[in-house]
Amino acid sequence: MDTNKRKLILVTNDDGVHAKGMAALIEAVKNFGDVVAVAPHQSQSGMSHALTLKTPLRLKQMKRNDSVTVYELNGTPVDCVKMAFDKILPRKPDLLVSGINHGSNSSLSSIYSGTVAAAREGAINSIKSIAFSNLDYSDDANFDFIQPIVRKIVEDVLENGLSTGTFLNVNVPHFDPSKLKGIRICRQARGVWVEEFEKRVDPIGANYYWLTGYFDNFEPDAEDTDEWALKNNYVSVVPLSFENCDFKAVNDLMHRFN
Amino acid sequence: MDTNKRKLILVTNDDGVHAKGMAALIEAVKNFGDVVAVAPHQSQSGMSHALTLKTPLRLKQMKRNDSVTVYELNGTPVDCVKMAFDKILPRKPDLLVSGINHGSNSSLSSIYSGTVAAAREGAINSIKSIAFSNLDYSDDANFDFIQPIVRKIVEDVLENGLSTGTFLNVNVPHFDPSKLKGIRICRQARGVWVEEFEKRVDPIGANYYWLTGYFDNFEPDAEDTDEWALKNNYVSVVPLSFENCDFKAVNDLMHRFN
Repeated sequence: MDTNKRKLILVTNDDGVHAKGMAALIEAVKNFGDVVAVAPHQSQSGMSHALTLKTPLRLKQMKRNDSVTVYELNGTPVDCVKMAFDKILPRKPDLLVSGINHGSNSSLSSIYSGTVAAAREGAINSIKSIAFSNLDYSDDANFDFIQPIVRKIVEDVLENGLSTGTFLNVNVPHFDPSKLKGIRICRQARGVWVEEFEKRVDPIGANYYWLTGYFDNFEPDAEDTDEWALKNNYVSVVPLSFENCDFKAVNDLMHRFN
Repeated sequence: MDTNKRKLILVTNDDGVHAKGMAALIEAVKNFGDVVAVAPHQSQSGMSHALTLKTPLRLKQMKRNDSVTVYELNGTPVDCVKMAFDKILPRKPDLLVSGINHGSNSSLSSIYSGTVAAAREGAINSIKSIAFSNLDYSDDANFDFIQPIVRKIVEDVLENGLSTGTFLNVNVPHFDPSKLKGIRICRQARGVWVEEFEKRVDPIGANYYWLTGYFDNFEPDAEDTDEWALKNNYVSVVPLSFENCDFKAVNDLMHRFN
Protein backbone atom coordinates (compact mmCIF):
# COMPACT_ATOMS: atom_id res chain seq x y z
CA MET A 1 0.00 0.00 0.00
CA ASP A 2 1.23 3.49 -0.88
CA THR A 3 1.98 5.08 2.49
CA ASN A 4 0.95 8.45 1.10
CA LYS A 5 -2.54 7.09 0.78
CA ARG A 6 -2.82 5.49 4.20
CA LYS A 7 -5.48 7.15 6.29
CA LEU A 8 -4.58 8.79 9.59
CA ILE A 9 -7.11 8.12 12.35
CA LEU A 10 -7.28 9.86 15.71
CA VAL A 11 -8.88 7.86 18.52
CA THR A 12 -9.90 9.21 21.90
CA ASN A 13 -12.47 8.56 24.63
CA ASP A 14 -13.67 9.80 28.00
CA ASP A 15 -13.37 6.61 30.02
CA GLY A 16 -9.58 6.85 30.05
CA VAL A 17 -6.71 5.31 28.16
CA HIS A 18 -7.06 1.91 29.85
CA ALA A 19 -10.76 1.40 29.08
CA LYS A 20 -11.78 -1.76 27.29
CA GLY A 21 -14.02 0.30 24.98
CA MET A 22 -11.10 2.22 23.53
CA ALA A 23 -9.09 -0.93 22.91
CA ALA A 24 -12.12 -2.29 21.06
CA LEU A 25 -12.41 0.89 19.00
CA ILE A 26 -8.73 0.81 18.02
CA GLU A 27 -9.11 -2.83 17.04
CA ALA A 28 -12.16 -1.97 14.93
CA VAL A 29 -10.55 0.87 12.96
CA LYS A 30 -6.88 -0.10 12.68
CA ASN A 31 -7.28 -1.72 9.28
CA PHE A 32 -8.43 1.59 7.83
CA GLY A 33 -5.06 3.26 8.40
CA ASP A 34 -2.54 4.47 10.96
CA VAL A 35 -4.06 4.99 14.37
CA VAL A 36 -2.95 7.54 16.93
CA ALA A 37 -4.85 7.37 20.20
CA VAL A 38 -4.66 10.25 22.69
CA ALA A 39 -6.82 9.62 25.71
CA PRO A 40 -7.31 10.89 29.27
CA HIS A 41 -5.25 9.12 31.91
CA GLN A 42 -8.38 8.59 33.98
CA SER A 43 -12.15 8.70 33.60
CA GLN A 44 -13.56 11.98 32.31
CA SER A 45 -17.22 10.97 32.14
CA GLY A 46 -19.57 13.93 32.17
CA MET A 47 -16.78 16.38 31.33
CA SER A 48 -18.60 17.66 28.27
CA HIS A 49 -16.56 20.16 26.24
CA ALA A 50 -14.37 21.19 29.20
CA LEU A 51 -10.79 22.43 28.81
CA THR A 52 -7.98 22.25 31.35
CA LEU A 53 -6.80 25.80 31.98
CA LYS A 54 -5.59 25.77 35.60
CA THR A 55 -3.45 22.65 35.93
CA PRO A 56 -0.37 21.72 33.87
CA LEU A 57 -0.99 19.14 31.17
CA ARG A 58 1.37 16.19 30.99
CA LEU A 59 1.61 13.97 27.95
CA LYS A 60 3.06 10.46 27.92
CA GLN A 61 3.53 7.95 25.12
CA MET A 62 2.22 4.58 26.29
CA LYS A 63 2.93 2.22 23.44
CA ARG A 64 3.62 2.01 19.76
CA ASN A 65 3.63 -0.65 17.13
CA ASP A 66 3.65 -0.50 13.36
CA SER A 67 0.28 1.12 12.95
CA VAL A 68 -0.94 2.10 16.42
CA THR A 69 0.51 4.70 18.82
CA VAL A 70 -1.14 5.45 22.16
CA TYR A 71 -0.66 8.52 24.37
CA GLU A 72 -2.17 9.46 27.69
CA LEU A 73 -2.84 13.03 28.82
CA ASN A 74 -3.97 14.19 32.26
CA GLY A 75 -6.75 16.22 30.73
CA THR A 76 -10.23 16.14 29.28
CA PRO A 77 -11.25 14.49 25.99
CA VAL A 78 -11.28 17.90 24.29
CA ASP A 79 -7.77 18.61 25.63
CA CYS A 80 -6.69 15.31 24.07
CA VAL A 81 -8.05 16.29 20.67
CA LYS A 82 -6.46 19.74 20.79
CA MET A 83 -3.13 18.28 21.94
CA ALA A 84 -3.21 15.72 19.15
CA PHE A 85 -3.83 18.41 16.54
CA ASP A 86 -1.15 20.77 17.84
CA LYS A 87 1.63 18.52 19.12
CA ILE A 88 1.25 14.89 18.05
CA LEU A 89 -0.23 14.32 14.61
CA PRO A 90 1.95 14.97 11.55
CA ARG A 91 -1.08 16.33 9.69
CA LYS A 92 -4.84 16.70 10.01
CA PRO A 93 -6.36 13.25 10.51
CA ASP A 94 -8.78 11.78 7.98
CA LEU A 95 -11.08 10.65 10.76
CA LEU A 96 -11.66 11.10 14.48
CA VAL A 97 -13.44 8.36 16.42
CA SER A 98 -14.28 8.66 20.11
CA GLY A 99 -15.26 5.85 22.46
CA ILE A 100 -16.46 3.23 22.58
CA ASN A 101 -18.07 4.71 25.66
CA HIS A 102 -19.10 2.48 28.53
CA GLY A 103 -22.67 3.76 28.84
CA SER A 104 -25.31 5.63 26.88
CA ASN A 105 -24.82 9.03 25.30
CA SER A 106 -28.19 9.22 23.59
CA SER A 107 -30.45 12.24 23.40
CA LEU A 108 -29.66 15.09 25.82
CA SER A 109 -26.66 13.19 27.23
CA SER A 110 -24.80 14.32 24.11
CA ILE A 111 -24.49 17.72 25.83
CA TYR A 112 -22.89 16.31 29.00
CA SER A 113 -20.74 13.64 27.37
CA GLY A 114 -16.97 13.87 27.04
CA THR A 115 -17.06 11.19 24.35
CA VAL A 116 -19.40 13.26 22.19
CA ALA A 117 -17.49 16.49 22.97
CA ALA A 118 -14.31 14.99 21.49
CA ALA A 119 -16.18 14.35 18.23
CA ARG A 120 -17.64 17.87 18.36
CA GLU A 121 -14.10 19.27 18.69
CA GLY A 122 -13.14 17.25 15.62
CA ALA A 123 -16.06 18.69 13.65
CA ILE A 124 -15.15 22.24 14.75
CA ASN A 125 -11.76 21.56 13.16
CA SER A 126 -13.35 20.20 9.95
CA ILE A 127 -12.46 16.56 10.69
CA LYS A 128 -14.95 13.77 9.97
CA SER A 129 -15.84 12.72 13.50
CA ILE A 130 -17.90 9.97 15.12
CA ALA A 131 -18.69 9.24 18.78
CA PHE A 132 -19.54 5.63 19.67
CA SER A 133 -21.24 4.53 22.88
CA ASN A 134 -22.39 1.19 24.23
CA LEU A 135 -25.45 1.23 26.46
CA ASP A 136 -23.68 -1.21 28.79
CA TYR A 137 -22.01 0.76 31.61
CA SER A 138 -19.91 -2.09 33.02
CA ASP A 139 -16.11 -1.98 32.85
CA ASP A 140 -16.15 -5.39 31.25
CA ALA A 141 -18.89 -4.63 28.70
CA ASN A 142 -19.01 -6.74 25.54
CA PHE A 143 -17.76 -4.78 22.54
CA ASP A 144 -17.20 -7.67 20.12
CA PHE A 145 -20.55 -7.33 18.37
CA ILE A 146 -20.06 -3.55 18.06
CA GLN A 147 -16.86 -3.72 16.03
CA PRO A 148 -18.58 -4.67 12.74
CA ILE A 149 -21.02 -1.80 13.31
CA VAL A 150 -18.13 0.62 13.86
CA ARG A 151 -16.47 -0.62 10.66
CA LYS A 152 -19.66 -0.24 8.62
CA ILE A 153 -20.22 3.36 9.76
CA VAL A 154 -16.55 4.34 9.45
CA GLU A 155 -16.37 2.87 5.95
CA ASP A 156 -19.41 4.87 4.90
CA VAL A 157 -18.11 8.12 6.40
CA LEU A 158 -14.66 7.72 4.87
CA GLU A 159 -16.23 7.02 1.48
CA ASN A 160 -19.15 9.45 1.45
CA GLY A 161 -18.05 12.10 3.93
CA LEU A 162 -20.11 14.30 6.21
CA SER A 163 -21.27 17.87 5.66
CA THR A 164 -19.06 20.54 7.21
CA GLY A 165 -19.99 20.94 10.85
CA THR A 166 -21.83 17.62 11.07
CA PHE A 167 -20.61 14.79 13.28
CA LEU A 168 -22.24 11.53 14.32
CA ASN A 169 -23.41 10.30 17.71
CA VAL A 170 -23.75 6.51 17.57
CA ASN A 171 -25.30 4.48 20.41
CA VAL A 172 -25.52 0.71 20.50
CA PRO A 173 -28.06 -1.24 22.61
CA HIS A 174 -26.68 -4.27 24.38
CA PHE A 175 -29.74 -6.13 25.57
CA ASP A 176 -29.66 -8.88 22.97
CA PRO A 177 -26.91 -8.43 20.38
CA SER A 178 -28.08 -11.45 18.39
CA LYS A 179 -31.40 -9.70 17.74
CA LEU A 180 -29.94 -6.32 16.71
CA LYS A 181 -32.21 -5.04 13.94
CA GLY A 182 -29.80 -2.70 12.15
CA ILE A 183 -28.77 0.94 12.01
CA ARG A 184 -31.22 3.85 12.11
CA ILE A 185 -30.54 7.52 11.40
CA CYS A 186 -32.46 9.40 14.10
CA ARG A 187 -33.06 12.72 15.67
CA GLN A 188 -32.55 13.16 19.42
CA ALA A 189 -35.54 12.46 21.61
CA ARG A 190 -36.70 15.57 23.45
CA GLY A 191 -36.62 15.36 27.21
CA VAL A 192 -34.78 16.42 30.29
CA TRP A 193 -32.63 14.88 32.99
CA VAL A 194 -34.47 15.06 36.29
CA GLU A 195 -31.85 15.44 38.98
CA GLU A 196 -32.11 13.93 42.39
CA PHE A 197 -29.02 14.69 44.43
CA GLU A 198 -28.51 11.96 46.99
CA LYS A 199 -27.54 13.41 50.34
CA ARG A 200 -25.15 11.44 52.54
CA VAL A 201 -23.24 12.08 55.73
CA ASP A 202 -19.50 11.41 55.89
CA PRO A 203 -17.75 9.81 58.92
CA ILE A 204 -17.02 13.19 60.48
CA GLY A 205 -20.66 14.26 60.23
CA ALA A 206 -20.57 16.57 57.22
CA ASN A 207 -23.14 16.41 54.45
CA TYR A 208 -22.24 15.65 50.86
CA TYR A 209 -24.14 14.89 47.68
CA TRP A 210 -23.96 12.58 44.68
CA LEU A 211 -25.63 13.54 41.43
CA THR A 212 -28.24 10.97 40.40
CA GLY A 213 -31.27 11.25 38.20
CA TYR A 214 -33.24 9.84 35.33
CA PHE A 215 -34.00 10.91 31.79
CA ASP A 216 -37.59 12.02 31.32
CA ASN A 217 -38.34 11.30 27.64
CA PHE A 218 -41.04 13.72 26.47
CA GLU A 219 -41.86 11.63 23.39
CA PRO A 220 -41.39 7.90 24.09
CA ASP A 221 -43.54 6.91 21.10
CA ALA A 222 -41.72 8.98 18.47
CA GLU A 223 -40.26 6.38 16.11
CA ASP A 224 -37.78 8.81 14.53
CA THR A 225 -35.90 9.34 17.81
CA ASP A 226 -32.77 7.72 19.16
CA GLU A 227 -34.49 6.64 22.38
CA TRP A 228 -37.13 4.75 20.42
CA ALA A 229 -34.50 3.14 18.18
CA LEU A 230 -32.40 1.96 21.13
CA LYS A 231 -35.43 0.62 22.99
CA ASN A 232 -36.37 -1.33 19.88
CA ASN A 233 -32.90 -2.83 19.47
CA TYR A 234 -31.58 -0.62 16.67
CA VAL A 235 -28.22 1.14 16.61
CA SER A 236 -29.05 4.88 16.71
CA VAL A 237 -27.02 7.29 14.57
CA VAL A 238 -27.80 10.94 15.33
CA PRO A 239 -26.13 13.62 13.21
CA LEU A 240 -25.18 16.54 15.46
CA SER A 241 -23.93 20.03 14.70
CA PHE A 242 -21.62 22.22 16.75
CA GLU A 243 -23.56 25.28 15.61
CA ASN A 244 -25.50 26.53 18.61
CA CYS A 245 -26.71 29.89 17.33
CA ASP A 246 -30.50 30.14 17.23
CA PHE A 247 -30.94 31.85 13.86
CA LYS A 248 -34.71 32.07 14.13
CA ALA A 249 -34.36 33.92 17.43
CA VAL A 250 -31.79 36.27 15.86
CA ASN A 251 -34.54 37.44 13.52
CA ASP A 252 -37.25 37.45 16.16
CA LEU A 253 -35.23 39.52 18.63
CA MET A 254 -33.73 41.94 16.11
CA HIS A 255 -36.29 44.65 16.79
CA ARG A 256 -36.32 44.36 20.58
CA PHE A 257 -33.10 46.08 21.54
CA ASN A 258 -32.69 48.59 18.74
CA MET B 1 -45.24 44.48 46.96
CA ASP B 2 -47.28 41.29 46.95
CA THR B 3 -44.76 38.59 47.83
CA ASN B 4 -46.66 36.12 45.65
CA LYS B 5 -45.70 38.24 42.70
CA ARG B 6 -42.03 38.72 43.54
CA LYS B 7 -39.77 37.16 40.96
CA LEU B 8 -37.29 34.46 41.92
CA ILE B 9 -33.91 34.87 40.25
CA LEU B 10 -31.12 32.29 40.20
CA VAL B 11 -27.61 33.69 39.79
CA THR B 12 -24.48 31.67 39.07
CA ASN B 13 -21.13 32.08 37.35
CA ASP B 14 -17.95 30.19 36.48
CA ASP B 15 -15.37 32.50 38.08
CA GLY B 16 -16.37 31.38 41.55
CA VAL B 17 -18.53 32.70 44.34
CA HIS B 18 -16.07 35.44 45.34
CA ALA B 19 -15.71 36.98 41.87
CA LYS B 20 -16.39 40.68 41.53
CA GLY B 21 -18.46 39.99 38.40
CA MET B 22 -21.02 37.95 40.31
CA ALA B 23 -21.38 40.58 43.00
CA ALA B 24 -22.01 43.11 40.22
CA LEU B 25 -24.62 40.84 38.64
CA ILE B 26 -26.47 40.34 41.93
CA GLU B 27 -26.44 44.09 42.46
CA ALA B 28 -27.83 44.62 38.97
CA VAL B 29 -30.75 42.20 39.27
CA LYS B 30 -31.73 42.33 42.94
CA ASN B 31 -34.44 44.93 42.43
CA PHE B 32 -36.27 42.55 40.09
CA GLY B 33 -37.00 40.04 42.87
CA ASP B 34 -35.53 37.60 45.36
CA VAL B 35 -32.06 36.45 44.41
CA VAL B 36 -30.54 33.07 45.17
CA ALA B 37 -26.93 32.71 44.03
CA VAL B 38 -25.34 29.26 43.83
CA ALA B 39 -21.80 29.46 42.54
CA PRO B 40 -18.64 27.35 42.35
CA HIS B 41 -16.27 27.72 45.29
CA GLN B 42 -13.40 28.33 42.89
CA SER B 43 -12.82 29.21 39.25
CA GLN B 44 -14.44 26.89 36.73
CA SER B 45 -13.42 28.73 33.57
CA GLY B 46 -13.47 26.52 30.49
CA MET B 47 -15.55 23.85 32.22
CA SER B 48 -18.26 23.99 29.57
CA HIS B 49 -21.28 21.81 30.40
CA ALA B 50 -19.30 19.45 32.69
CA LEU B 51 -20.87 17.59 35.60
CA THR B 52 -19.16 16.35 38.75
CA LEU B 53 -19.70 12.60 38.95
CA LYS B 54 -16.61 11.27 40.75
CA THR B 55 -16.12 13.57 43.74
CA PRO B 56 -18.65 14.34 46.50
CA LEU B 57 -20.39 17.67 46.20
CA ARG B 58 -20.48 19.91 49.26
CA LEU B 59 -22.88 22.82 49.57
CA LYS B 60 -22.46 25.72 51.97
CA GLN B 61 -24.62 28.76 52.64
CA MET B 62 -22.40 31.84 52.62
CA LYS B 63 -24.72 34.70 53.46
CA ARG B 64 -28.28 35.81 53.48
CA ASN B 65 -30.12 39.07 53.79
CA ASP B 66 -33.70 40.04 53.07
CA SER B 67 -33.60 39.46 49.37
CA VAL B 68 -30.25 37.80 48.55
CA THR B 69 -28.99 34.35 49.59
CA VAL B 70 -25.62 33.04 48.44
CA TYR B 71 -24.39 29.44 48.41
CA GLU B 72 -21.09 27.93 47.31
CA LEU B 73 -20.70 24.46 45.84
CA ASN B 74 -17.46 22.63 45.07
CA GLY B 75 -18.65 21.82 41.57
CA THR B 76 -19.10 23.14 38.07
CA PRO B 77 -21.53 25.88 37.00
CA VAL B 78 -23.93 23.23 35.67
CA ASP B 79 -23.73 21.35 39.00
CA CYS B 80 -24.70 24.63 40.69
CA VAL B 81 -27.77 25.05 38.50
CA LYS B 82 -28.87 21.44 39.00
CA MET B 83 -28.30 21.66 42.77
CA ALA B 84 -30.32 24.89 42.92
CA PHE B 85 -33.23 23.30 41.07
CA ASP B 86 -33.23 20.11 43.14
CA LYS B 87 -32.22 21.17 46.64
CA ILE B 88 -32.28 24.94 47.15
CA LEU B 89 -35.00 26.82 45.30
CA PRO B 90 -38.59 26.62 46.60
CA ARG B 91 -39.88 26.62 43.00
CA LYS B 92 -38.68 27.07 39.42
CA PRO B 93 -37.02 30.47 39.11
CA ASP B 94 -38.43 33.13 36.80
CA LEU B 95 -34.98 33.89 35.49
CA LEU B 96 -31.43 32.53 35.50
CA VAL B 97 -28.51 34.91 34.99
CA SER B 98 -24.91 33.74 34.79
CA GLY B 99 -21.78 35.86 35.11
CA ILE B 100 -20.77 38.55 34.80
CA ASN B 101 -17.82 36.64 33.41
CA HIS B 102 -14.34 38.10 33.64
CA GLY B 103 -13.41 37.66 29.97
CA SER B 104 -15.02 37.13 26.58
CA ASN B 105 -17.43 34.33 25.74
CA SER B 106 -18.21 35.44 22.22
CA SER B 107 -18.52 33.22 19.16
CA LEU B 108 -17.13 29.69 19.52
CA SER B 109 -16.12 30.33 23.15
CA SER B 110 -19.79 29.77 23.99
CA ILE B 111 -19.06 26.03 23.60
CA TYR B 112 -16.16 26.02 26.09
CA SER B 113 -17.61 28.49 28.59
CA GLY B 114 -18.94 27.48 31.99
CA THR B 115 -20.82 30.78 32.22
CA VAL B 116 -22.73 30.05 29.02
CA ALA B 117 -23.25 26.39 30.01
CA ALA B 118 -25.10 27.47 33.16
CA ALA B 119 -27.52 29.45 31.00
CA ARG B 120 -27.84 26.49 28.61
CA GLU B 121 -28.77 24.29 31.57
CA GLY B 122 -31.43 26.82 32.51
CA ALA B 123 -32.86 26.75 28.99
CA ILE B 124 -32.91 22.94 28.99
CA ASN B 125 -35.11 23.24 32.07
CA SER B 126 -37.38 25.82 30.42
CA ILE B 127 -36.06 28.76 32.44
CA LYS B 128 -35.45 32.14 30.79
CA SER B 129 -31.65 32.30 30.92
CA ILE B 130 -28.98 34.84 30.09
CA ALA B 131 -25.16 34.62 30.24
CA PHE B 132 -23.26 37.90 30.67
CA SER B 133 -19.56 38.37 29.98
CA ASN B 134 -17.23 41.34 30.14
CA LEU B 135 -14.35 41.36 27.67
CA ASP B 136 -12.06 42.53 30.48
CA TYR B 137 -10.30 39.47 31.99
CA SER B 138 -8.85 41.22 35.05
CA ASP B 139 -10.01 40.27 38.55
CA ASP B 140 -10.71 43.92 39.21
CA ALA B 141 -12.57 44.61 35.96
CA ASN B 142 -15.01 47.52 35.89
CA PHE B 143 -18.61 46.29 35.93
CA ASP B 144 -20.35 49.56 36.85
CA PHE B 145 -21.19 50.53 33.28
CA ILE B 146 -22.50 47.00 32.59
CA GLN B 147 -25.19 47.01 35.28
CA PRO B 148 -27.61 49.27 33.33
CA ILE B 149 -27.11 47.00 30.29
CA VAL B 150 -27.92 43.93 32.41
CA ARG B 151 -31.04 45.62 33.73
CA LYS B 152 -32.21 46.63 30.26
CA ILE B 153 -31.85 43.09 28.90
CA VAL B 154 -33.31 41.41 31.99
CA GLU B 155 -36.29 43.77 31.93
CA ASP B 156 -36.97 42.93 28.30
CA VAL B 157 -36.66 39.18 28.85
CA LEU B 158 -38.89 39.20 31.92
CA GLU B 159 -41.50 41.20 30.03
CA ASN B 160 -41.35 39.65 26.57
CA GLY B 161 -39.92 36.19 27.29
CA LEU B 162 -37.78 33.97 25.10
CA SER B 163 -38.83 31.10 22.87
CA THR B 164 -38.57 27.65 24.44
CA GLY B 165 -35.01 26.42 24.12
CA THR B 166 -33.55 29.85 23.40
CA PHE B 167 -31.13 31.54 25.79
CA LEU B 168 -28.97 34.64 25.42
CA ASN B 169 -25.21 35.05 25.31
CA VAL B 170 -24.35 38.68 26.07
CA ASN B 171 -20.83 40.09 25.74
CA VAL B 172 -19.80 43.62 26.66
CA PRO B 173 -16.73 45.39 25.25
CA HIS B 174 -14.71 47.36 27.77
CA PHE B 175 -12.38 49.45 25.67
CA ASP B 176 -14.18 52.74 26.06
CA PRO B 177 -17.44 52.45 28.02
CA SER B 178 -18.30 56.09 27.45
CA LYS B 179 -18.45 55.45 23.70
CA LEU B 180 -20.57 52.29 23.86
CA LYS B 181 -22.90 52.45 20.87
CA GLY B 182 -25.74 50.23 22.11
CA ILE B 183 -26.98 46.66 21.98
CA ARG B 184 -26.94 44.51 18.84
CA ILE B 185 -28.65 41.18 18.28
CA CYS B 186 -26.06 39.08 16.42
CA ARG B 187 -25.21 35.67 15.16
CA GLN B 188 -21.93 34.04 16.20
CA ALA B 189 -18.93 34.75 14.01
CA ARG B 190 -17.64 31.60 12.32
CA GLY B 191 -14.09 30.68 13.15
CA VAL B 192 -11.93 28.35 15.13
CA TRP B 193 -9.58 28.49 18.09
CA VAL B 194 -6.06 27.77 16.92
CA GLU B 195 -4.31 26.00 19.75
CA GLU B 196 -0.69 26.46 20.60
CA PHE B 197 0.26 24.43 23.64
CA GLU B 198 3.15 26.10 25.40
CA LYS B 199 5.72 23.54 26.48
CA ARG B 200 7.62 24.16 29.71
CA VAL B 201 9.98 22.19 31.90
CA ASP B 202 9.30 21.90 35.64
CA PRO B 203 12.03 22.08 38.33
CA ILE B 204 12.53 18.31 38.29
CA GLY B 205 13.02 18.27 34.54
CA ALA B 206 9.62 16.98 33.36
CA ASN B 207 7.74 18.55 30.49
CA TYR B 208 4.31 20.07 30.89
CA TYR B 209 1.98 22.15 28.74
CA TRP B 210 -0.34 25.13 29.04
CA LEU B 211 -3.17 25.58 26.59
CA THR B 212 -2.87 28.87 24.74
CA GLY B 213 -4.21 29.98 21.38
CA TYR B 214 -6.07 32.61 19.45
CA PHE B 215 -9.44 32.83 17.76
CA ASP B 216 -9.21 32.78 13.98
CA ASN B 217 -12.29 34.71 12.83
CA PHE B 218 -13.27 33.44 9.37
CA GLU B 219 -15.45 36.47 8.64
CA PRO B 220 -14.05 39.61 10.32
CA ASP B 221 -16.06 41.92 8.05
CA ALA B 222 -19.49 40.36 8.66
CA GLU B 223 -21.46 43.11 10.37
CA ASP B 224 -24.15 40.75 11.67
CA THR B 225 -21.69 38.84 13.89
CA ASP B 226 -20.84 39.21 17.56
CA GLU B 227 -17.13 39.66 16.86
CA TRP B 228 -17.85 42.62 14.58
CA ALA B 229 -20.25 44.16 17.11
CA LEU B 230 -17.74 43.88 19.95
CA LYS B 231 -14.92 45.28 17.87
CA ASN B 232 -17.13 48.22 16.98
CA ASN B 233 -18.05 48.94 20.60
CA TYR B 234 -21.53 47.39 20.66
CA VAL B 235 -22.86 44.99 23.27
CA SER B 236 -23.43 41.69 21.44
CA VAL B 237 -26.52 39.61 22.23
CA VAL B 238 -26.46 36.19 20.56
CA PRO B 239 -29.51 33.93 20.95
CA LEU B 240 -28.32 30.35 21.40
CA SER B 241 -30.17 27.04 21.39
CA PHE B 242 -29.34 23.86 23.29
CA GLU B 243 -30.63 21.82 20.37
CA ASN B 244 -27.61 20.24 18.72
CA CYS B 245 -29.30 17.78 16.36
CA ASP B 246 -28.45 18.46 12.72
CA PHE B 247 -31.91 17.98 11.18
CA LYS B 248 -30.75 18.58 7.62
CA ALA B 249 -28.18 15.82 8.02
CA VAL B 250 -30.86 13.49 9.44
CA ASN B 251 -32.62 13.76 6.08
CA ASP B 252 -29.43 13.59 4.01
CA LEU B 253 -28.14 10.48 5.76
CA MET B 254 -31.44 8.65 5.98
CA HIS B 255 -30.78 6.52 2.90
CA ARG B 256 -27.17 5.68 3.66
CA PHE B 257 -27.50 3.05 6.35
CA ASN B 258 -30.84 1.48 5.49
